[in-house]
Amino acid sequence: MAQEKEATGAIEWRIKMADGSSESLAPTEARGCPDIAWLALKGLVVGLVMKVCDFLKKAWDLGHKEPIKVTHGVKVGMALTAVSLFYYMRPLYEGVGGNAMWAVMTVVVVFENTVGATLSKSINRICGTLLAGFLAIGIHWIADRSGKDFEPFIIAFSVFLLASAATFSRFIPSVKARFDYGAMIFILTFSLVSVSGYRVDELFDLATQRMSTIIIGTCLCIVITMIICPIWAGEQLHTLITGNMDKLANSLDGCVADYFNDSGDFAGSDKESDKKLLGYKCVLGSKATEESMANFARWEPAHGRFNFRHPWKQYLKIGASMRNCAYCIEALNGCVSSENKVSELTKTHISNTAIKVSSDSSMVIKELARTMKTMKKSSAIDLLVGEMNNSVLKLQEDLKSLPKLFINPQPPLQEPESPGNNNKTKAEAAAVALMDIIPLVTLTSLLVEIVARIEGMVSAVQELAKLAEFKAVGDRKANQNQTTNKVIPDQSALQRV
Amino acid sequence: MAQEKEATGAIEWRIKMADGSSESLAPTEARGCPDIAWLALKGLVVGLVMKVCDFLKKAWDLGHKEPIKVTHGVKVGMALTAVSLFYYMRPLYEGVGGNAMWAVMTVVVVFENTVGATLSKSINRICGTLLAGFLAIGIHWIADRSGKDFEPFIIAFSVFLLASAATFSRFIPSVKARFDYGAMIFILTFSLVSVSGYRVDELFDLATQRMSTIIIGTCLCIVITMIICPIWAGEQLHTLITGNMDKLANSLDGCVADYFNDSGDFAGSDKESDKKLLGYKCVLGSKATEESMANFARWEPAHGRFNFRHPWKQYLKIGASMRNCAYCIEALNGCVSSENKVSELTKTHISNTAIKVSSDSSMVIKELARTMKTMKKSSAIDLLVGEMNNSVLKLQEDLKSLPKLFINPQPPLQEPESPGNNNKTKAEAAAVALMDIIPLVTLTSLLVEIVARIEGMVSAVQELAKLAEFKAVGDRKANQNQTTNKVIPDQSALQRV
Repeated sequence: MAQEKEATGAIEWRIKMADGSSESLAPTEARGCPDIAWLALKGLVVGLVMKVCDFLKKAWDLGHKEPIKVTHGVKVGMALTAVSLFYYMRPLYEGVGGNAMWAVMTVVVVFENTVGATLSKSINRICGTLLAGFLAIGIHWIADRSGKDFEPFIIAFSVFLLASAATFSRFIPSVKARFDYGAMIFILTFSLVSVSGYRVDELFDLATQRMSTIIIGTCLCIVITMIICPIWAGEQLHTLITGNMDKLANSLDGCVADYFNDSGDFAGSDKESDKKLLGYKCVLGSKATEESMANFARWEPAHGRFNFRHPWKQYLKIGASMRNCAYCIEALNGCVSSENKVSELTKTHISNTAIKVSSDSSMVIKELARTMKTMKKSSAIDLLVGEMNNSVLKLQEDLKSLPKLFINPQPPLQEPESPGNNNKTKAEAAAVALMDIIPLVTLTSLLVEIVARIEGMVSAVQELAKLAEFKAVGDRKANQNQTTNKVIPDQSALQRV
Repeated sequence: MAQEKEATGAIEWRIKMADGSSESLAPTEARGCPDIAWLALKGLVVGLVMKVCDFLKKAWDLGHKEPIKVTHGVKVGMALTAVSLFYYMRPLYEGVGGNAMWAVMTVVVVFENTVGATLSKSINRICGTLLAGFLAIGIHWIADRSGKDFEPFIIAFSVFLLASAATFSRFIPSVKARFDYGAMIFILTFSLVSVSGYRVDELFDLATQRMSTIIIGTCLCIVITMIICPIWAGEQLHTLITGNMDKLANSLDGCVADYFNDSGDFAGSDKESDKKLLGYKCVLGSKATEESMANFARWEPAHGRFNFRHPWKQYLKIGASMRNCAYCIEALNGCVSSENKVSELTKTHISNTAIKVSSDSSMVIKELARTMKTMKKSSAIDLLVGEMNNSVLKLQEDLKSLPKLFINPQPPLQEPESPGNNNKTKAEAAAVALMDIIPLVTLTSLLVEIVARIEGMVSAVQELAKLAEFKAVGDRKANQNQTTNKVIPDQSALQRV
């Protein structure tokens, strides 16, 4: 049959669909060239259309989920149209070789998603251009004086030296974090001015014009980015950290509760609890985002509730302490869902206290999130931490009383035995008991470790409260009244537990 | 005394040193203005010089540690000098407004650290420019036909629409990963051509010239980056992953061995073991680097031992499985160094098997690293995994036999008691024992979990071996002869354990 296929020269066209499925057109008897070409073209077009549709669907989903990104696109479009029309309409416009280009280029390159990033790039661009311009004019002047023979060598050597040094400097962490773009613009401007054949006095005129267009471009960007739906890197960092805290609290809660309620059977867990468990994974993977946002936030002026010198670096420490905690939750999640099953008797013995510890811990985390959201010192945090520590002690006590449960009730249930063998049997019972409770012991140890790491989070947030001068709250009631609706469910959770 | 100081108007200058220490110049008697200004200036200059020295020292250290980065700086300098001189020498040179600018700009913007990044940016730049150029000329032609009144509107509208859409598309993950720079260049070129006041036939000439300069620039970059000390993103990713594997193995080994050898006393640990413990932290923090390198590696041609379509994406999966393992090591590290101390008796009972498990696990990880380094299928890996699993079973057996240790020898050592009270006392002894061995139980559970996750690493590496078609090794001896000197110490470690 396979040979037959080959013999008839039938060709099987497979169109790789964008979604991974493949459509197999039925093998056809030997056809003419135009037919084959037509089929090939058809397959290609269908494949392409599918890919484009898929891409558009993805784009639509993204736009629907994060309209802020669509807004950014529209803002860039507006800025570019404004600067284009400005230069297009000007009577003294001199074509693309003129200055318009620099304004357009500035807008395209400098306009970033957040205010901080735009400001950082604008300032970098202006400073880099200025510094490189002056330096290049100085070297041009020296090269001019040293005669026609030496000029190319001086210029080539200076370009080589400064470009190498500036490129290398971009690897130094402190430069990379704040002046990466500035160093690039420095190299660009220096090389451009150096290779230009202009005389020094001409260069000054040119430099003034270019600087003015760059400043027009950056100002336009800064005004548009700050006035129309501004996206502040600081605000985003703040939201990211507090949101991650809530996720962390929920996944800790969910992980322990699921273990005790569903008898460790994770196969039947629905989407809701899966989402909860995914919470800590967001914390694990957010380091790079936090760092870049903190870098940009440092460039931003005072906005909303944040002052100019808001301690953004402290947010990174809070993020690190959260990740520390998330590592343990990840290990906990792995250990409790492993195969080693625990009898229901022992589980129920310890479940209440363990759930109490996890809910107390998540209460502490949620209180920290609330402290950051309201930017007011929490009066309840010490109480909650104390309660959490008490629960941990209680959990350890409960664990200590577990062996009684086994050694006392179990021997009477076993078959009658000789008194001499008694000791050995009991040891075996204890051994069985130990194997039985290993997951519980591990869970307890990890919960103890998680509680210790939550205390690290508490001190990091308290440090932030000190640095950012959070206001103290007089009494608890006032605090409750001031908190938003979003926070109230957590309060009811406190009463429920 | 303090008042005296104030009364005499003495001023204390503190120079904040770059390294954090502060030098306090002795308070001086009331001086004249020039003196104060001189001191202020001196302080400023000294501070600045210290900062610059500190910066230079950092740069020197970085250059010393990673000479590859200095090489990159020199390469950029060479490329820029070459392109500058090329245009400077040309008789048909027409000043900075001409085409030289585009070649210089291309070199500055496109020349990246790795071959993959340079290629990616070059191709993005060329494609973005071409696509936007043709589109802009088309729209220009339409605008030209529709009369003077409509022209600005058509151009403004097209700039707005395309700039918004292209900016938004940069947020779509698939575009962001591969075509981010191309989208930016598309917007730039389209805007520049649109605002230019040229006629369509003039534009074609201009476009040809500009494309030729851009192609000259990119070709120069690609040639220099590939010929002079090429830095391949793929090679770097490969080295990063295999290096991280070794680090992971060492820190797992070190962590468990330290616990049993030093009686959990981590205060006296020296730098060497600290470095070992830091190993897994490298794994935890390398996700972003791995992802960007894998993205760039996909653009690279075949180089060294890697083919054109080397499965770089699989490296990300291996990295993820390594991080999974590192989370558990992090939790293990936290749990074993916590305050809950274990008696030496129980520790020695279990130490040999626990150390065996950790060394077996690290042997497996090192074998995986060796498989990747030599790019040959390992014949020993199944054996090693089997041995690791056996050790885990042995560890669980040992843990099971722990209660015997307590219930048998301890009661005789206690004071004589009434037979009726016997049961209760034994239960208490078991309770004490349980509290005593909690860290050991936790350690065991985490080791079991780590072993399970190492199996995830094994299957990820085997998947890579299948995808990249690693060669099989006939017999073990041949493999041993082929491995490099670096690998041999691990072999001796196997014999030692």
